[in-house]
Amino acid sequence: MDVPKRRMIVDIHGDVENCVAESGVQEGMVLVNAMHITASVFINDNEGGLHQDYDRWLEELVPFNPGTDPASGGYLHNRTGEDNADAHHKRQIMGREVVVAITNGKLHLGPWEHIFYYEFDGRRRKRVLVKIIGE
Amino acid sequence: MDVPKRRMIVDIHGDVENCVAESGVQEGMVLVNAMHITASVFINDNEGGLHQDYDRWLEELVPFNPGTDPASGGYLHNRTGEDNADAHHKRQIMGREVVVAITNGKLHLGPWEHIFYYEFDGRRRKRVLVKIIGE
Amino acid sequence: MDVPKRRMIVDIHGDVENCVAESGVQEGMVLVNAMHITASVFINDNEGGLHQDYDRWLEELVPFNPGTDPASGGYLHNRTGEDNADAHHKRQIMGREVVVAITNGKLHLGPWEHIFYYEFDGRRRKRVLVKIIGE
Repeated sequence: MDVPKRRMIVDIHGDVENCVAESGVQEGMVLVNAMHITASVFINDNEGGLHQDYDRWLEELVPFNPGTDPASGGYLHNRTGEDNADAHHKRQIMGREVVVAITNGKLHLGPWEHIFYYEFDGRRRKRVLVKIIGE
Repeated sequence: MDVPKRRMIVDIHGDVENCVAESGVQEGMVLVNAMHITASVFINDNEGGLHQDYDRWLEELVPFNPGTDPASGGYLHNRTGEDNADAHHKRQIMGREVVVAITNGKLHLGPWEHIFYYEFDGRRRKRVLVKIIGE
Repeated sequence: MDVPKRRMIVDIHGDVENCVAESGVQEGMVLVNAMHITASVFINDNEGGLHQDYDRWLEELVPFNPGTDPASGGYLHNRTGEDNADAHHKRQIMGREVVVAITNGKLHLGPWEHIFYYEFDGRRRKRVLVKIIGE
């Protein structure tokens, strides 16, 4: 998928539903994970205000800073020439993956559970892995 | 299960053990997840002091605030009429789910691993999903 | 494995690859989890600067403190005689487990995904569980 912004939440719920339907699996589990180490897959509310709250909160917990000196808010990781050390931290808060039950051929979720991809260092094409097991 | 308090840790370890025993599965995995997006399932110590430490720490990282203005500690999510934006954040720290191995028909855990449900916006009935795969 | 330092990141990627190869499973999932409640298994960059950044960041979010009085930075959990309450918190940020797809007999990962064990209260031998399902 295309992720045009640096930080961006992408709704992948319908894509995961389609994968499960196409698999024909009736009882099992589906693993959904980011294939990038600056991104998360998470399940929470499909509500734009909350998504903005997340973004502000994560930026408070671990601010973007392209610098390389921790004493002034930078990160050692950025000595590699990257500027995305904050993204590697934010992904740990929000998590790499979700595992969801499949029951009667469908995602078995609570009423408000919705699956999202959260990129913290985008502006290019990104990939999600959907792996289904069961029968 | 009934969760009478707003924030509350509920011991679900025995319930998960029972589900695994009743399934008859000898080798596989069990997924245990909250069905609510203001709650977590986590594995850690069965020790009340630690649970109080968690509660105080989470409240520091992302305080309860019914307000809607981020400039004064509120959350945009609360503009929906909710007051539980903090709960949606706390659940991301503690995690949605755990996946545990089943070996020889039993939960395959370390000696101190104990399974809990952690509600951040309770005072009503709540549900956990236990999904078992294997043979 | 031997974990000589209190906090230490151990590269277990090759060990997990070997377990998958030896299992002969071609399509499935592998669960990799810490068996200790003061440790994490996580997937991120194999880059030493980032690992130092993580360590400093986690220590800021939840500092080591052997004390038992929360008013002076201690933890109630340490009233049990332990001094590792911070470790039980750090593990929640970094996560207990990862679940990785197995496709064509191999770990199905993004190009930079690398599997690590992160101990927050070491200086003794520690164990990781690798559970594989599939066919």
